[in-house]
Amino acid sequence: MKKYKVIFLPDQKETEVDEETTLLEAAKKAGVYLNSLCGGEGVCGKCRVQVIKGKAKVDKNSIAFFTKEEMEKGYVLACQTRVKEDLEVLIPPESRLEEEQILKESIESKQKTWRESPPIHYSEPDWVSLHKRPNDPASLFEPLASKIYIDLPKPTIDDNIPDTGRIVRELRKKLKYPSYEITFSCLKDLFIKLRRSDWKVTVTLSRHNDVGQVLQIEEGNTADRNYGAAVDVGTTTVVAQLVDLKTGKVMGVEGNHNLQAHYGEDVLSRIAYVCGKGSLDHLQKAVIENINMLIQTLAKAKGIKIEDITCIVAAGNTTMSHILLGLMPCSIRDDPYVPTVDLYPPILAKEIGVTINAQGIIQVMPSIASYIGGDTVAGVLACNMADRPEMTCLIDIGTNGEIVIGNNEWLLSCSASAGPAFEGGDTKWGMRATRGAIQKVKIDGGTVIYETIGKDKPRGICGSGLIDLIYELARNRIIDIDAKFGSSLQDKRLIRGENEMEYIVAFPEETETGETLVIGQTDIDNIIRSKAAIFAAIKSLIDYAGLSFDQLEKIYVAGGFGNYLNVEKAIGMGLLPDIPRERIEFVGNSSLMGARMALLSFHVFEKAISISQSITHIELSKFALFADEYMASLYLPHIDRERLFPSVKF
Amino acid sequence: MKKYKVIFLPDQKETEVDEETTLLEAAKKAGVYLNSLCGGEGVCGKCRVQVIKGKAKVDKNSIAFFTKEEMEKGYVLACQTRVKEDLEVLIPPESRLEEEQILKESIESKQKTWRESPPIHYSEPDWVSLHKRPNDPASLFEPLASKIYIDLPKPTIDDNIPDTGRIVRELRKKLKYPSYEITFSCLKDLFIKLRRSDWKVTVTLSRHNDVGQVLQIEEGNTADRNYGAAVDVGTTTVVAQLVDLKTGKVMGVEGNHNLQAHYGEDVLSRIAYVCGKGSLDHLQKAVIENINMLIQTLAKAKGIKIEDITCIVAAGNTTMSHILLGLMPCSIRDDPYVPTVDLYPPILAKEIGVTINAQGIIQVMPSIASYIGGDTVAGVLACNMADRPEMTCLIDIGTNGEIVIGNNEWLLSCSASAGPAFEGGDTKWGMRATRGAIQKVKIDGGTVIYETIGKDKPRGICGSGLIDLIYELARNRIIDIDAKFGSSLQDKRLIRGENEMEYIVAFPEETETGETLVIGQTDIDNIIRSKAAIFAAIKSLIDYAGLSFDQLEKIYVAGGFGNYLNVEKAIGMGLLPDIPRERIEFVGNSSLMGARMALLSFHVFEKAISISQSITHIELSKFALFADEYMASLYLPHIDRERLFPSVKF
Repeated sequence: MKKYKVIFLPDQKETEVDEETTLLEAAKKAGVYLNSLCGGEGVCGKCRVQVIKGKAKVDKNSIAFFTKEEMEKGYVLACQTRVKEDLEVLIPPESRLEEEQILKESIESKQKTWRESPPIHYSEPDWVSLHKRPNDPASLFEPLASKIYIDLPKPTIDDNIPDTGRIVRELRKKLKYPSYEITFSCLKDLFIKLRRSDWKVTVTLSRHNDVGQVLQIEEGNTADRNYGAAVDVGTTTVVAQLVDLKTGKVMGVEGNHNLQAHYGEDVLSRIAYVCGKGSLDHLQKAVIENINMLIQTLAKAKGIKIEDITCIVAAGNTTMSHILLGLMPCSIRDDPYVPTVDLYPPILAKEIGVTINAQGIIQVMPSIASYIGGDTVAGVLACNMADRPEMTCLIDIGTNGEIVIGNNEWLLSCSASAGPAFEGGDTKWGMRATRGAIQKVKIDGGTVIYETIGKDKPRGICGSGLIDLIYELARNRIIDIDAKFGSSLQDKRLIRGENEMEYIVAFPEETETGETLVIGQTDIDNIIRSKAAIFAAIKSLIDYAGLSFDQLEKIYVAGGFGNYLNVEKAIGMGLLPDIPRERIEFVGNSSLMGARMALLSFHVFEKAISISQSITHIELSKFALFADEYMASLYLPHIDRERLFPSVKF
Repeated sequence: MKKYKVIFLPDQKETEVDEETTLLEAAKKAGVYLNSLCGGEGVCGKCRVQVIKGKAKVDKNSIAFFTKEEMEKGYVLACQTRVKEDLEVLIPPESRLEEEQILKESIESKQKTWRESPPIHYSEPDWVSLHKRPNDPASLFEPLASKIYIDLPKPTIDDNIPDTGRIVRELRKKLKYPSYEITFSCLKDLFIKLRRSDWKVTVTLSRHNDVGQVLQIEEGNTADRNYGAAVDVGTTTVVAQLVDLKTGKVMGVEGNHNLQAHYGEDVLSRIAYVCGKGSLDHLQKAVIENINMLIQTLAKAKGIKIEDITCIVAAGNTTMSHILLGLMPCSIRDDPYVPTVDLYPPILAKEIGVTINAQGIIQVMPSIASYIGGDTVAGVLACNMADRPEMTCLIDIGTNGEIVIGNNEWLLSCSASAGPAFEGGDTKWGMRATRGAIQKVKIDGGTVIYETIGKDKPRGICGSGLIDLIYELARNRIIDIDAKFGSSLQDKRLIRGENEMEYIVAFPEETETGETLVIGQTDIDNIIRSKAAIFAAIKSLIDYAGLSFDQLEKIYVAGGFGNYLNVEKAIGMGLLPDIPRERIEFVGNSSLMGARMALLSFHVFEKAISISQSITHIELSKFALFADEYMASLYLPHIDRERLFPSVKF
């Protein structure tokens, strides 16, 4: 097969590929990471690139994504275009994944970059104590892996029980487990370790049900060196906290973009990759590389040895959890949405290629259903919802909205397929909340005031920007209650685009690409459908429970854009219920916090299992009233504005 | 390094070895198996060979083992003699291990050979039921690995719990475990297995504490194909029974000689090998080869697949159990005699290289102390000692004598180092109970009547033959009550040997080697010390418990020569207590029987654990009265004959 050279600009990255290779694959091979929401299916139009030298074979169907002018300039979809000769390809800013840039940075500069560019929210790395949150239920500090130093009495002819019995006898004096098991791997060199160390050893224990399991026996006293990691395995980003398991203190935190993005940006496209032409192994290896990189970086920065990390708790949605463990996620996608497992067995980290202590374990947070995962269970833990009599609600807004309401007596959950509108998909200028994204918008008269992440020139609009924008368009009567542009309106920013009406958010001279940044009627419709799905889901759960919104003491908002959301505007456009604003609390990465709490307390982890098994999960698709609620929510803020959104004024 | 050719006769086996290689190692390399009680230390004198061509370098210390005449004929100790040029070496019959010959035989002829040559005792292979023995406590049939066929209801949107939950829900209907765990290895392809099999699968379960552990999930109904193996891992022989785990029936049995014999014949010489110049790995691999060969032979003979064998229960002494699992046995040998472990964790058979089902488990019978192993615990199970109010006693006579007494309220154990006299060591003409061994002896006047195994010409005397011989010598007053030859006696068979008095058992024309088969005073002394150690141990336990012998309802005699022992003579020479003869029962391979009972019943296995943990083990070395008992037992039958052996008449 013929080979051709492809050079990617502006980075001058070069690679050689077989004829017929797609530009998306060629880019991956060259180490250039392109946006690809659909995973290379040619339907999202996010992997736009410009062929500036040489000819490529373009799939006809992809033409619909471009104007004539663009086509003449050589714009193509990378995933639908195949190499036919040597090429030079320019990656426009909007098609780049930030990833590459981030991963290459040194620890020092990365820290800085993360603070500027906000997709990843985490607690401060400075020795946050376990009990930082007042309602943190981790009252019983008992890490999932703990180290106990024991100084054994030497055997004599009057006391010649086996070595294992001697160890267990000593552990019984210090701990309270009904029984103990010493794993086979510990036995192999136990004979020599005990005698060489003069009977002074440190035992690493985990607890499984009521059994104390001895994972490791080290010579001498190493009890001071016991670390764990809490990992939030997000579809977009992976974040790890390094925790001192002796003190419970957080030592550091690092994040990176989920390397699975090469194979599709959202959960459904990754499932499609695994269950179609792709391989589970690729995705599993990708996320494990994420975790290994984070752990290595953290260990290096804090001067600790990888071998002293004995336990990981990972929280992710059900698909991420399955892929992490190498389990097929295919049945998650299809009706009736059945995952393989909800209670993930504890395994040795090395079994899946995660490099910590050779006997270190990884425990994945239990999930509830195909679209309510361990990240939500972790959120319930972090918000202490299951241990208080007050009625509270957790809303995690992403491509899927996950909603939990309840208290210490019962919990209800559901998930709503919101679509990727709030995460940069489904809209022409939508983008992730990275540098250059418009995150805040205000419209006054004919003036649009916006703020971008990193104060850069706008490259697109992220979720919080879109929410602001829709609210502002409605407040300024540029769109009506049914979210349609008023056709009779006179506004210099309202223009007739190729197929539909568009509103200019930024003029060419303002933007990074020099193009006009607009929001069209289709974009607005997509956003409205997303917010309607989420609000209808919340409303359905509230109705199912026989409650009204004002009975909610708290609404916890989790997820990527939580901290940057303007509550007033989110309520105003009908995304969040109209309750007193002080009852709405942003909890940031509650998945990571819940994972850390479980890492630090076996009892919290048991609570997580109990939550996952006792929660009542509602499948909205079989909940008759959801469709009506959804239809009623396709308005700004809602068709029943008087009753449901009395405080919204515009 | 120079290489030389060594040819071993009479088999014409040839090998090439480096200069300075010992003849013992060369023989091993050539596939010729020599006796070696001491493991190549040059102290047992069992590996005699005759160099008939070429010169070898002989260690001076080994000269003591040979007469001048023998030395002139080229007799040397193989372990103390090194190759210096090309050699031809003749292996005399008494130095050959039978092993090689046995392992090469086909299944049909082996079966025959085993029946003729009796080192291995086992129940008949013809479908022996679980409850063959009336006192068999295996009343609750629940194999350690069982298969359950389940036909799962297909998931619907109203019933879309995870696949694992669906399986567990169905298992709960059929079984009674409080909880279930599905091992990680089962999850990997569960998604596809369930759907491909139309939700009809067979689950292989083991029970660990109160948890039902799913080891394997197979498509379709395979519940009829579930087999297990009970294995007695003896120091000398390894015996395996193939058991149908669905019905509990024994399908077949096979035995072979423990291949570890290459590295030393008894437990202490093997420990010396492992903890000295040798390697644990060699010994572990050897016994695992034994087990794999037995299982393959049994599976082939019965037409079953190795993959359908899901569980093994192995019983052996503490050293054999440690080596099987790859655990260092060094501390077992030295005061204060501490093994690494008594409760062996269940492991996957493949973890140690035993080839059965990939998820099949191996469970080693728990041991009590360094010299009371899982074989004894199995014996206690087989004799149902721990569940009956009657006081009984189990005596297992080998290089170590293991003794247990007690009932359903308490159990006492001890072990006595008897030396290898009853197993062919420590006496000039002693040999294992294999072909050509004198196993029965009667002396009348000047006539010696003997019977050999296989009716061959005598090659030596095995344990039961030695017991008969000592009794007969005493009965005929050829030796006195202090076990010394009466110097004044006139008997044509009583001769003055090189250093001491000897009694001719067989004249040169009767024996296979053409040599005179004698028993010397040193031989007799060694046998008396062995029997004294065992009797004193029994007596010490009885005294410790405050009992007398007549309170024993039963004495079970286990071990290699049990079935061939003449009770009257064993009592007469003071080895067994003088109780009514019908109370003495030979139980043959009670280790194998106990292992099978545990294989077939989780409850029996739990009983084994409880026995190993609750038994009171007495270290005779710290039991003050043992030394006195031992001294008093160095007589025929005992110094206190009137009180302890009233029925012995000679």
